[in-house]
Amino acid sequence: MCEANAYIQKDDSEELLMESVDLLEPTENGEYRLVNIFGEQKTIKATIKSMSLVNHRIVFEAQDDQN
Amino acid sequence: MCEANAYIQKDDSEELLMESVDLLEPTENGEYRLVNIFGEQKTIKATIKSMSLVNHRIVFEAQDDQN
Repeated sequence: MCEANAYIQKDDSEELLMESVDLLEPTENGEYRLVNIFGEQKTIKATIKSMSLVNHRIVFEAQDDQN
Repeated sequence: MCEANAYIQKDDSEELLMESVDLLEPTENGEYRLVNIFGEQKTIKATIKSMSLVNHRIVFEAQDDQN
């Protein structure tokens, strides 16, 4: 299977957000909805930083707009 | 290998943009840079519409801001 793990980068560290992500799509309010192969869903307020499908990695960057 | 094909949706049709995409990252000017497993690169002015890694599909939506 070709799902990927999604990480979020905050400052200098990377945190696993969701394993085995299949679907990714933007929502109307500028967030991303992730769905993994187990049907679990997560919505995150972040931007895509990079993605390597061969390495099964999606890295998001946290948005700092809550000030 | 777990690369995906990238398509761009324009009006009602979908056009193949690049096959076997490995890397995807945003550029500084709001575009996306795609690199496939053959080392070919492409930069496109579009937003991500949806992605299904299990189906090896990334769909972009053309941006209409040239008016």
